Amino acid sequence: MIIQLSATISPEDKQSIISRVNKLGYKPNEVRTQKRDYIVAIGKKEFDIRILGSMPGITDIHRVSDDYKLVSAKWKVGRTAIDLGDGVFIGDGSLAIMAGPCSIENEMQIEATINHLKENNVRIMRGGVFKPRSSPYAFRGLGIDGLKLWYSLAKKAGIKIVSEVMQVSQIAEMVDYVDIFQVGARNTQNFNLLDELGKVDKPVMIKRGISGTIEELLSSAEYVFSAGNEKLMLCERGIRTYEKASRNTFDINAIPILREKSHLPVLADPSHGIGIRDYVEPIALAAAIAGADGIIYETHQKPEEAFSDGQQTLDFIESTKLISKLTRVQALSGGV
Amino acid sequence: MIIQLSATISPEDKQSIISRVNKLGYKPNEVRTQKRDYIVAIGKKEFDIRILGSMPGITDIHRVSDDYKLVSAKWKVGRTAIDLGDGVFIGDGSLAIMAGPCSIENEMQIEATINHLKENNVRIMRGGVFKPRSSPYAFRGLGIDGLKLWYSLAKKAGIKIVSEVMQVSQIAEMVDYVDIFQVGARNTQNFNLLDELGKVDKPVMIKRGISGTIEELLSSAEYVFSAGNEKLMLCERGIRTYEKASRNTFDINAIPILREKSHLPVLADPSHGIGIRDYVEPIALAAAIAGADGIIYETHQKPEEAFSDGQQTLDFIESTKLISKLTRVQALSGGV
Amino acid sequence: MIIQLSATISPEDKQSIISRVNKLGYKPNEVRTQKRDYIVAIGKKEFDIRILGSMPGITDIHRVSDDYKLVSAKWKVGRTAIDLGDGVFIGDGSLAIMAGPCSIENEMQIEATINHLKENNVRIMRGGVFKPRSSPYAFRGLGIDGLKLWYSLAKKAGIKIVSEVMQVSQIAEMVDYVDIFQVGARNTQNFNLLDELGKVDKPVMIKRGISGTIEELLSSAEYVFSAGNEKLMLCERGIRTYEKASRNTFDINAIPILREKSHLPVLADPSHGIGIRDYVEPIALAAAIAGADGIIYETHQKPEEAFSDGQQTLDFIESTKLISKLTRVQALSGGV
Amino acid sequence: MIIQLSATISPEDKQSIISRVNKLGYKPNEVRTQKRDYIVAIGKKEFDIRILGSMPGITDIHRVSDDYKLVSAKWKVGRTAIDLGDGVFIGDGSLAIMAGPCSIENEMQIEATINHLKENNVRIMRGGVFKPRSSPYAFRGLGIDGLKLWYSLAKKAGIKIVSEVMQVSQIAEMVDYVDIFQVGARNTQNFNLLDELGKVDKPVMIKRGISGTIEELLSSAEYVFSAGNEKLMLCERGIRTYEKASRNTFDINAIPILREKSHLPVLADPSHGIGIRDYVEPIALAAAIAGADGIIYETHQKPEEAFSDGQQTLDFIESTKLISKLTRVQALSGGV
Repeated sequence: MIIQLSATISPEDKQSIISRVNKLGYKPNEVRTQKRDYIVAIGKKEFDIRILGSMPGITDIHRVSDDYKLVSAKWKVGRTAIDLGDGVFIGDGSLAIMAGPCSIENEMQIEATINHLKENNVRIMRGGVFKPRSSPYAFRGLGIDGLKLWYSLAKKAGIKIVSEVMQVSQIAEMVDYVDIFQVGARNTQNFNLLDELGKVDKPVMIKRGISGTIEELLSSAEYVFSAGNEKLMLCERGIRTYEKASRNTFDINAIPILREKSHLPVLADPSHGIGIRDYVEPIALAAAIAGADGIIYETHQKPEEAFSDGQQTLDFIESTKLISKLTRVQALSGGV
Repeated sequence: MIIQLSATISPEDKQSIISRVNKLGYKPNEVRTQKRDYIVAIGKKEFDIRILGSMPGITDIHRVSDDYKLVSAKWKVGRTAIDLGDGVFIGDGSLAIMAGPCSIENEMQIEATINHLKENNVRIMRGGVFKPRSSPYAFRGLGIDGLKLWYSLAKKAGIKIVSEVMQVSQIAEMVDYVDIFQVGARNTQNFNLLDELGKVDKPVMIKRGISGTIEELLSSAEYVFSAGNEKLMLCERGIRTYEKASRNTFDINAIPILREKSHLPVLADPSHGIGIRDYVEPIALAAAIAGADGIIYETHQKPEEAFSDGQQTLDFIESTKLISKLTRVQALSGGV
Repeated sequence: MIIQLSATISPEDKQSIISRVNKLGYKPNEVRTQKRDYIVAIGKKEFDIRILGSMPGITDIHRVSDDYKLVSAKWKVGRTAIDLGDGVFIGDGSLAIMAGPCSIENEMQIEATINHLKENNVRIMRGGVFKPRSSPYAFRGLGIDGLKLWYSLAKKAGIKIVSEVMQVSQIAEMVDYVDIFQVGARNTQNFNLLDELGKVDKPVMIKRGISGTIEELLSSAEYVFSAGNEKLMLCERGIRTYEKASRNTFDINAIPILREKSHLPVLADPSHGIGIRDYVEPIALAAAIAGADGIIYETHQKPEEAFSDGQQTLDFIESTKLISKLTRVQALSGGV
Repeated sequence: MIIQLSATISPEDKQSIISRVNKLGYKPNEVRTQKRDYIVAIGKKEFDIRILGSMPGITDIHRVSDDYKLVSAKWKVGRTAIDLGDGVFIGDGSLAIMAGPCSIENEMQIEATINHLKENNVRIMRGGVFKPRSSPYAFRGLGIDGLKLWYSLAKKAGIKIVSEVMQVSQIAEMVDYVDIFQVGARNTQNFNLLDELGKVDKPVMIKRGISGTIEELLSSAEYVFSAGNEKLMLCERGIRTYEKASRNTFDINAIPILREKSHLPVLADPSHGIGIRDYVEPIALAAAIAGADGIIYETHQKPEEAFSDGQQTLDFIESTKLISKLTRVQALSGGV
């Protein structure tokens, strides 16, 4: 049960509500987000909702049977849209495109990518400066200095930045230099990280776990939301299955299911979803027509020389072609 | 290695080729299909292909490193198209649509479905008369009499029939009353059935196994082809994964991968692929834009009363809407 | 619901029971096995079981909530034991051992294997004469002549035979030359085959599907049982997962779960379960101590020259060592 | 390639080796553990190992083709044993037993558990004070105060403690109050956490990821080892598969495979591995006989009242029975 509180509720009224919730056999959780205050009440008992409804300080009450509550579509009228500033939105009905290299490598690479994005009217650049790598001997990214350099160049160009945060201590380091914090597939259930991201006033995009369920992804989002941050996005990036013909199995089913279950924007990452350069395009188009709010993919001026993920990275010609096709699918989609 | 033989090759010349292949350390397999004769030579040794190339009776020679050979895209110029007669094609660049109930139930249901298809210019009707069911106590289909009734009504209406064959003894029973034999997901590796379908002059559509790999699907197709039948289609229908939010996980990745690996038409079954009525449409559209040669889905005049699979079956209004959207995606796709 | 009928029930009394079952809103299925007659009633409605209990001709009634009924442990007092004759039993509390090559190859190989088994007091030999192979170009087994040769040698030596049947037409061919019909992992849901094996008076061992669930395995067994054959065994042989360090993932959990859910004997196949020769022993021991009624594994006088599965096949020295360890684990197990 | 350095190597000699490694086309990584210094050289080129072998300051050189190096069994003579002090060892050939509740709840529960362990000569107690929970509204553990209380009681009783660390900031908090840091299944690829645990002089037990591969588990261990900590253990705890009859699929295959690939001790967690109280025992016995160096399982004086995981937790009577059986299997195992 989600109880929305009025902005002007008195401490006494709030306390009365909490006491009443407790008496009903529910466990109340106080949630204060950047937007408003809620009490999320966890329990199963039946009761007459009017007992609460008439109490002062309550704006609205919603029963939500899902294990996740605040991210559920069952209570929120309308879908969540994320405003990145400068007219850049995610989840407002347009198709957001985020493109860029797996790893940020150097100034030249950043500039080449920014130019490519600007030529194609893409407003958000992806890139990693802290890289989770299976092997401790592999390249782990340029770190915070790389991010600062990237940010200064991107800001000048009016490009927004999405980049992965791997641990709590990086949040403060990164917060002034990113527009979206990405939680990677290996950190979807890093609950401490999620808790801390809930306290930040920056949008967060959570990738589905390497073999995470849809339910787990939504529960992870619930962590961030209930810790205070409503600016949330979900991202399908392929799951681990027995099939080895592709790097992962892109779960196209997750796109409509996530959009039905949650009011949050749903992104798709076809690069990791299939992991093979030649097939990134059809998977991106499929995700778009299935209803994704945005596509995030890897592109590099010379994929074969990329520090990481070259095998699934588009060159700029392929990227340009993909953007053009996505635009046409999106035009159709409105009308389909 | 695939050696294409000339139509007029003499027995002596053929024998010489076989002997030479044996001497090269390859195992020759004589393959005679409805279209032509081949020798499929299995082995790994390196040799100068000109040794064979100059022998009389050989039209062409192709090295194919895949484990499957005849269904591989590595040797055949152009893609395979299936001609069902009366101007109905699969794999010719158009998007084939096959729709109908899970199970054939009775005359009224057949007629209602046929009318629905005709109104929407759909030329192929799906339906099961032999139903593989996990439980021995469940409805197992109307059997051959149901098929005969269905066939007579469909033929009159100019509608082609695709229906599942479950065992060898049904092939002869069914052959005069189907336009396409469907091999179901539980029979993808029923090798005896595949062998026998290779001897029939009727198109065959093989569904991917419940947790079959792409490689296994292609090897199953190789059984039918090498036993003589080149009129083959592949069908992605979702795979079994840990995710239980949908009945199966539709492997959208398989669409472009199968089309790259094989010259055979690739169909998609979104009904089984996601298993939830409300989401059949987005998965169907996704498969179409990702390159599928056709879509096969379940529709019924009253899904809630269907003998089986009602939860994933579209009603005729939803079906009409889907067909219209597929048509527009296909129009775009040519141009995308 | 399972209604056990008395051996002397009159047709009229049987008909009365069927009518009553129908009236209760249940669907009655008449089942006649080699041992006795049942009515398996499918339905969910609540009713007072005494309505049926007092009817003449009924020996006993059991409510069974599982989807499978006759193979469920919920109605049968005691576990099923299979008597192969000559003092060879499966499921009687001893640990049955079945060993032999993947494929039957020739007389010398059969004799070497029989000698090895006799030296170790193993009474059941496994081997394939009809081989399901992914590729149509691979060795498919010696066929029925190989089986006849094998049978004549085994019979002389007092060794029982278990061998795979791949299709309905092979049942009649094989029936006089096998002691146990094996249904392979690719045929677990070949329902026509299961139906026909229900009509035969020979024990049947059903392997779990390549990615079959425990529930599906039990439902497949229900097919055979409800078609008349109570002499049934189940076999865990590893399932398909994302992990590629072993050929399959041996599902050790399935051993105690199957033994709890069903009264049928549960065998374990560690050779396919892990697929790596060096590790067959620990998996066999693990299965035995976890409660398996028997172990079936591959052994060959020269594994490196075996026609198939050499990489997971024990030589006779390893096999002897394994048998000795299994015996000691079994001795402990009684006492553990 | 692993180059073991002598304890007395001069900085100049070390530098010379690094230069030479670089010239050979390998990337040198300096590793200093609590025990000794290494250079781990990453690369693929062929060269004559004697070029390095004759250089001063080198104790030994080993080629290791695995992606993980220091945890590989390919270079280390003998297996790693962990000394917890007071005569408590893991990996010394005995079977280590770790038992206790999912969550530490209160003083009474701790004391009851300690008494139970002492009665059964179990020296290591498991328990969580920081609990990773899918839902933000679930009980998250008593935290550091719970740990301190537990530690004081356990120390008095001569019982060692293993407990999960969820994030970097908890390491310093916990280090004086645990004997083994546990890395949970959701943190197996939390690389920052692994790096920091490499700097601590306390044993670390890494659980396999929820759907982690064996290879990934070993690479995660490589993180800790290469960051300085050689006191490492691996733990199989079941993987995520399509099968839902058990909570996870305990991968019994992983036990012998991990023991072959790595010199580190291999633990087994049957409680999470099957997730059903009645079947914890057979899985524990199976893991022991398959070669596990230890068993970690959940026990509670009243499982039905446990704060978490009650459905897979043994009561003390079941626990006592299990310990007795494990002891007998272990006695046999030496002799098997």
